[in-house]
Amino acid sequence: MKQQIRLLGIDDSPFSFNDKYANIIGIVMRGGAYIEGVLKNQVSIDGDDATHICKNMIENTRHKEQIKAVLLDGVALGGFNVVDIEKLYNETKIPIITITRDKPDFDKIKEALQKHFSNWEVRWNLLSKGKLHEVKTKHNPIFVKCTGLSIDEAKEIIKLSTIRGVIPEPIRVAHLVASGITRGESYGKA
Amino acid sequence: MKQQIRLLGIDDSPFSFNDKYANIIGIVMRGGAYIEGVLKNQVSIDGDDATHICKNMIENTRHKEQIKAVLLDGVALGGFNVVDIEKLYNETKIPIITITRDKPDFDKIKEALQKHFSNWEVRWNLLSKGKLHEVKTKHNPIFVKCTGLSIDEAKEIIKLSTIRGVIPEPIRVAHLVASGITRGESYGKA
Repeated sequence: MKQQIRLLGIDDSPFSFNDKYANIIGIVMRGGAYIEGVLKNQVSIDGDDATHICKNMIENTRHKEQIKAVLLDGVALGGFNVVDIEKLYNETKIPIITITRDKPDFDKIKEALQKHFSNWEVRWNLLSKGKLHEVKTKHNPIFVKCTGLSIDEAKEIIKLSTIRGVIPEPIRVAHLVASGITRGESYGKA
Repeated sequence: MKQQIRLLGIDDSPFSFNDKYANIIGIVMRGGAYIEGVLKNQVSIDGDDATHICKNMIENTRHKEQIKAVLLDGVALGGFNVVDIEKLYNETKIPIITITRDKPDFDKIKEALQKHFSNWEVRWNLLSKGKLHEVKTKHNPIFVKCTGLSIDEAKEIIKLSTIRGVIPEPIRVAHLVASGITRGESYGKA
């Protein structure tokens, strides 16, 4: 696989409970090294538009034809606004990889969904579908789902786009931008 | 000079004539390769707070002690909101480098200032003070002012932080973020 493969990393901004929307930032990068574009959109907090908004972000960027994979910081944006990664792949034809630093606590997530959403089962089905792979790194393992490509291809993309730590640059930078523009200074980790 | 030297690049967002403020984005980078932080603030369009806002951005970031130079996309942010780079250096003790792709047309600038501002002389003095160096690159020459370091040191910093084209990464990325968050997709060149 080429080191200079174009990737789109997406992460959401931090938000407070009074906010209706969270910003989402997309970073188009060649491998893990060179930023080619910055995209912004917003999703409704705890809403159900994340799949649609991600699709718009992908479809509307002039970089679309170059993007070989989309990397998401987990499967939900703006709280429990869950991305249907299969649908996103089917509609864009671009492979999707989700990555989280921590193993999701599915019991807690299910409990929170049941408490807060009448349509909890829809969200739960989206959140829990697809195989979650534990992927070893030089540091702690990360947790990965992928659709439209094999886990081995996903691992290769993660490896070539990670510079320091365990999070690929397109997601790490999307996190820095999303938190920086919301809080005035970026903080924390994707 | 270390390749991994920390730099802060600052650029402003595009704006329309109805706007009162333009966003400014700061990118903290190691050399031209690795983004460590994203900062955001705003300046009043055609106002006189750019020096103060840049000073705040520098003073308030947790990266301050590491930053070895500040790189500005030209000497004005948010229209004719001119940065007093000597004052900024004197108050922060961090060397300042301004870079533009095109040679400023000083006659046109003076004319525009005279037309729009009663205090045009103050702005003109800030804009025109300090030596403007024409610096050769592999491509077109760039135009550089510097304070707090020699032009040879400034050239070295520009060289080590430029990957493609002629604009150092901290400024190039600040431009992408500033235009991307304002327009939804980044465009144009710093």
